[in-house]
Amino acid sequence: MHMSRAQRIASSAGMDAVVISNGTSPFLDPVFWYVTEQTSGTFEGSFAVISKDGGLDVVTGRLEETTAKKGKGNVHVYETRDDMESIFKGLLKGCGRIGISGRSVSYNASEYLKKVSGAELTDVSAKIAGVIAIKDRKEITEIRKACGVTSKTASEIPGMLHRGMTEKEASRLIDSDMRDNGGTGNAFETIAAFGPNSAEPHYRPSDRRLKKGDAALFDFGSMHGMYCSDLTRTVFFGKTDDILERAYAVVLKAKDAGMREMYDGAPAKDADTAARNIIDGSEFKGMFIHSFGHGIGMSIHESPSVSHRSEDILKEGMVVSAEPGIYIPGTGGIRIEDTVLITKGGHEVLTEFDQSFTVI
Amino acid sequence: MHMSRAQRIASSAGMDAVVISNGTSPFLDPVFWYVTEQTSGTFEGSFAVISKDGGLDVVTGRLEETTAKKGKGNVHVYETRDDMESIFKGLLKGCGRIGISGRSVSYNASEYLKKVSGAELTDVSAKIAGVIAIKDRKEITEIRKACGVTSKTASEIPGMLHRGMTEKEASRLIDSDMRDNGGTGNAFETIAAFGPNSAEPHYRPSDRRLKKGDAALFDFGSMHGMYCSDLTRTVFFGKTDDILERAYAVVLKAKDAGMREMYDGAPAKDADTAARNIIDGSEFKGMFIHSFGHGIGMSIHESPSVSHRSEDILKEGMVVSAEPGIYIPGTGGIRIEDTVLITKGGHEVLTEFDQSFTVI
Repeated sequence: MHMSRAQRIASSAGMDAVVISNGTSPFLDPVFWYVTEQTSGTFEGSFAVISKDGGLDVVTGRLEETTAKKGKGNVHVYETRDDMESIFKGLLKGCGRIGISGRSVSYNASEYLKKVSGAELTDVSAKIAGVIAIKDRKEITEIRKACGVTSKTASEIPGMLHRGMTEKEASRLIDSDMRDNGGTGNAFETIAAFGPNSAEPHYRPSDRRLKKGDAALFDFGSMHGMYCSDLTRTVFFGKTDDILERAYAVVLKAKDAGMREMYDGAPAKDADTAARNIIDGSEFKGMFIHSFGHGIGMSIHESPSVSHRSEDILKEGMVVSAEPGIYIPGTGGIRIEDTVLITKGGHEVLTEFDQSFTVI
Repeated sequence: MHMSRAQRIASSAGMDAVVISNGTSPFLDPVFWYVTEQTSGTFEGSFAVISKDGGLDVVTGRLEETTAKKGKGNVHVYETRDDMESIFKGLLKGCGRIGISGRSVSYNASEYLKKVSGAELTDVSAKIAGVIAIKDRKEITEIRKACGVTSKTASEIPGMLHRGMTEKEASRLIDSDMRDNGGTGNAFETIAAFGPNSAEPHYRPSDRRLKKGDAALFDFGSMHGMYCSDLTRTVFFGKTDDILERAYAVVLKAKDAGMREMYDGAPAKDADTAARNIIDGSEFKGMFIHSFGHGIGMSIHESPSVSHRSEDILKEGMVVSAEPGIYIPGTGGIRIEDTVLITKGGHEVLTEFDQSFTVI
């Protein structure tokens, strides 16, 4: 039997009800869009209420009424705080245990829910994350399109670079190019890092100019519809330090080793461990300072975690990044990243670009 | 005496400490960037701890260490959950009352803080919002630049439109144009709505094509650095319904009436009331279905609220939107929006574009 998204969450959570709450932008919960199957709207101050049997009610203001009615769920519109309270009291009547997404619901919203329902709140965010980690066909189609846009842009990077351009200029070109390639927006702020700046994994582009001998690292991803993609390409602007060429080869080898551990049923940590063993067994020991990967969906970082501490199991339908890196302070960093779909027998790489050592 | 940003928050909150917490993207608190004066980084799972006297400590993972050290505050790096716990226990020792930003901190982070500190948590988000609502010179410079980018794009809209183009194509052109004009990214997802779709205030662009007689509403804003801008322009593609032309004139009049109430010391609700009275006194009674404006800063929606229920007072240094609208279901909507800086004697309009009734 086909289960709705709300039914899957209800069944996984095992509560009398599950309430998903949006604050003010940027504190909007992608799970709200997931269950309502909305592709539109902002829904600040709106709630999705999932009943024990997977029924869905949407509580929203008048501003979003028209949009809300295009999505799933029974729509309840409030004008005032009093309206909202009586809607909640009706929907949550008799619920003793309410599940919330403790990672995303605000302290204030949780206090409000306690007050209006009189119920006990339980954090079910890990269970919700487990449900949304497995993508359905509709979602995979969107992610595939997002990856297509990002891959095309990755292939166009060598043609964008010229001596003296700033990191900010490069990130701007990448963003415009993704839009031109059919993307619907950035999944996150594009990283363009030249020379020693590439040794900072979460660097933000500056006015640093591209110079001969620089590593040039680009981490970016387009959205398509509500879904993200994620890709990192590192290229070299002219002859560079030998150490960076060696690091590139090690990162590539680490990525291959990690990706061999990516299949339905594999412990997620195995990919991290396999990649880390390669890097820590090289002259770059200790220089892989983040985890191998993360789930990708409506959020750019979601379940599963692909770190050496993860207890997650990879499952068919999960979409994750594979992104080992080596960071040499003062010299530069290398990261190579694909977006990968876990399949029954193994995985499918959804991004595609030239991953050979490229000197421009 | 010049007070640091952390000192201003400490003094306004009146707690033993204030803790600002980041979850996983998108649940990142702009207040973290505000107090650290960071212009970079992601800082997932990082915290800013403000002591009673305004001292600042930053608790972060190894991934963000290099970036963290470029900002304000003493940086403490954790490797494990145990490290993090002992750092917190050290920083929060003897604190009986801890202020949190209850609107943005997650339920889970608040439960964690309760556990490690043993302290009582108090929501001080309204007080924090009151502090960050008043922009300093550095912030106003950035917002001014963001508004410059957005205004230039607004002036270029008539040249972008052609019959048969989709809303998605139009929003893509606007986004690319903002990047070309020096913007560093979208402050929010651009709205492009044609014909009856413009009657939904928070519409998301679709494949609807531009037809003769359509209203074409564009709501967009560029960022510059960490700061946002916000502008809405509505134009007409060929001869349109007379009712839309009349609505345009009423919105413009309502905007002028609202903006006359915008000055240091004015109750924020007065602007909303003045604009609403104009619209409700016209044939479009009841069709202004959102509030007149909102604060703009690192977030696109922040304090103050410029609604008829607001108890906020406008103060010098606040930046707010002025955006009345009329929405006629099935026909179309009109919204005209500027970003406005409140000054001592009145206000300064930071956005600039042709607001006359424009038929293309």
